[in-house]
Amino acid sequence: MSNNKICTLFNIQYPIIQGGMVWCSGWELASAVSNAGGLGLLGAGSMHPETLREHIQKCKKATSKPFGVNIPLMYPEIDTIMHLIVEEGVKIVFTSAGNPKIWTEWLHNHDICVAHVVSSTRFALKCEEAGVDAIVAEGFEAGGHNGREETTTLCLIPAIKEKCSLPLIAAGGIASGKSILAVQCLGADGVQIGTRFAITEESSAHQAFKERCLQVHEGDTMLTLKQLSPTRLIKNSFYEQIAEAEKRGATTEEIRILLGKGRSKKGIFMGDMEEGELEIGQVVSTIDRIQTVKEVIDDLISDYQNAHYYIQPSSAWF
Amino acid sequence: MSNNKICTLFNIQYPIIQGGMVWCSGWELASAVSNAGGLGLLGAGSMHPETLREHIQKCKKATSKPFGVNIPLMYPEIDTIMHLIVEEGVKIVFTSAGNPKIWTEWLHNHDICVAHVVSSTRFALKCEEAGVDAIVAEGFEAGGHNGREETTTLCLIPAIKEKCSLPLIAAGGIASGKSILAVQCLGADGVQIGTRFAITEESSAHQAFKERCLQVHEGDTMLTLKQLSPTRLIKNSFYEQIAEAEKRGATTEEIRILLGKGRSKKGIFMGDMEEGELEIGQVVSTIDRIQTVKEVIDDLISDYQNAHYYIQPSSAWF
Repeated sequence: MSNNKICTLFNIQYPIIQGGMVWCSGWELASAVSNAGGLGLLGAGSMHPETLREHIQKCKKATSKPFGVNIPLMYPEIDTIMHLIVEEGVKIVFTSAGNPKIWTEWLHNHDICVAHVVSSTRFALKCEEAGVDAIVAEGFEAGGHNGREETTTLCLIPAIKEKCSLPLIAAGGIASGKSILAVQCLGADGVQIGTRFAITEESSAHQAFKERCLQVHEGDTMLTLKQLSPTRLIKNSFYEQIAEAEKRGATTEEIRILLGKGRSKKGIFMGDMEEGELEIGQVVSTIDRIQTVKEVIDDLISDYQNAHYYIQPSSAWF
Repeated sequence: MSNNKICTLFNIQYPIIQGGMVWCSGWELASAVSNAGGLGLLGAGSMHPETLREHIQKCKKATSKPFGVNIPLMYPEIDTIMHLIVEEGVKIVFTSAGNPKIWTEWLHNHDICVAHVVSSTRFALKCEEAGVDAIVAEGFEAGGHNGREETTTLCLIPAIKEKCSLPLIAAGGIASGKSILAVQCLGADGVQIGTRFAITEESSAHQAFKERCLQVHEGDTMLTLKQLSPTRLIKNSFYEQIAEAEKRGATTEEIRILLGKGRSKKGIFMGDMEEGELEIGQVVSTIDRIQTVKEVIDDLISDYQNAHYYIQPSSAWF
C-alpha cells in the first residue's frame, strides 16, 4: 500500500475512511475501523467538548492505530474543541462546513494532518490554497449535510481531479467494492464511507434507526431543507411536514422553527423514527443487514477484487 | 467486441449509444455516431411524424450502419409514429417515459429490437417482465427529463445489476473514458451519452445553445419542474421564474401555465438563452469545446484506455 497517497498520509493499511457522522461515530466505531486497517473518525459534531474528550481517550485505549476527529467548523465551541484535540494528542482532523483557511495553519503548527470536506471544485481549490493535506469530495447522494450544487459523485470526482492536485478521497454513494473501484477509475486516491458504517454493530446509532435503514428502498431518501442547509434524510413524518411547508411557500424562518433543535439526536440516537431527522445516504437502499465493522471491511475488499472481473482485459470495450 | 452484449444486440462496434435528445438528435448526429462505430438515435420526441420520416430516410442514406429511434411513449401521435418506423424499416427503438408493456410485443412482432429507459430498479424489473431487450438506466445527473427518485448513476447501476439480468446501458454523468470505465466496474454493459453529443458540430441544437453549454459551471444546472416532470436545466431567466413560483407555493396549474408550450424548442433549437428551457446534463460543466462526433468518440476511447492507469495492478488498494 505504500504507493497509495491516502495510506501514506495517514499511515493506514487501506485507503478507507469512515465518515465522522453525528450520533453514529463514537469510539466503538472509530476504533473498530482503525483496528480493521481503515481510518476511523470520531464525529465531534454531536458531542459536547467533554464527551469528545472521553471518546478520544477511549479510542486511544481501544486501538493503537491512527484515528482522527471530524470537526464541523460551524461548531459553537470550536476553540474549545481545537485546543482539546491538541491536548489529547489527536494527529488527524477532518474539517467540514466552513472555511478551511481559518484553522489549517494552526492545526499544522500543532503537527496535525488536515483533510477538509468539499462538494465542489471551487472549494477544493480553496482547500489547496489553504494548505490542507487532503480533500474529501462528497457527492449529492451522500447522507446528511450536502452541497447546494447537487453535483453527484460521478461528476464531482473527475472534475476535481482535473483541477486540483491534492490527495482526493471520494464520498457519497460508496458502499461496495464495485463503487470503490469505480471512483478509483475516476481518479480518487481513497474513499470515505458513511452509510455502510452507520449501520454496523459498532455504530452508536439507535437500533431502531439501524433497522429502519434496512427497510429503505430506492427513492426513500431525499435531499431536503434546502432553504436552510441541504440535508439528505429518510422520508418520514418529519420529512413530510417539511415538504408540505415548502409546497405552501413557507418562509425560511418557518422552516427553521419547524426543524427546531435536536432532531437528528431524536432520530438517530433516541430512535424516534417519525419525528427525528434520519440522516443517511442514498446507497442505504442496497444494505440489507447489520454487520460488524470487520465484516464490512472484508466484504469491501473481496467485492473490490471481484469487481475487476468486469474490466478484465478480455472485456475491454475499446 | 463480440463478447459485449450491447455490441452483439445492436450489431455495433462500440457499446456507446448516443442519447435521443429533443432538438439535438437529427439525422446528422445519429448517422455520424453510427458511422463512428456507436449507435446513433434519432430523437422522435421533438419531431412531427413526417419530419421523423424525413430524418429516418436521410439517416439511411448517410450511414449503412445500424441506427435507432428514441420514442417517448407519451408522444401524442404514438400510433402514427410506431407504424411509420415499421414502414421505414427501422430495426432499433429506444422507448422512454411510459409503460414498456404497451408496445414491446408489437415491436418484437415487427422484428424491432427494443430498449427502454428507466430511472429505478422497480422499472427495470417491469422492463424485464415486458420482455424488452436492454435497459438504459439513467441517473439524477442526466439532462432533461429525469426520475422522481433522484437516484444517481453511481447508486442506480449496481442496484439494477443486482436484481435484473437484462443488458444494462448506463446513462447520466458520462462524458469521458474515465466515467465509461467507472460504470463498467459497476456492471454496465454499455453507455448512453447525451450531453457530450448535444454539443458536437453534428448536433442540430442552435449554436447559441452549444456556446452557452461551454460556459456552464458546476452547479449551474438544476433538477427543476418537480411538480410536473422533473427536468434538469441550465439556470437562466426561465429557471428563475420557476424557482420563484415554487418558493411562493404556486400550484401545479400555475407552474404548467408558466411553462407553456415549446420552451425546449425555444431554447435548444431557436437559441433563446433566457426564456427557453435549456435541457442538459450536470457533466456539461466539464466540456470546453465543440467537437465533431468523430473527435468525441476518439477522445472517449483514448481516455478510457488511459483511465486504466488508475487501476493498474500495482495500484490495487487491496
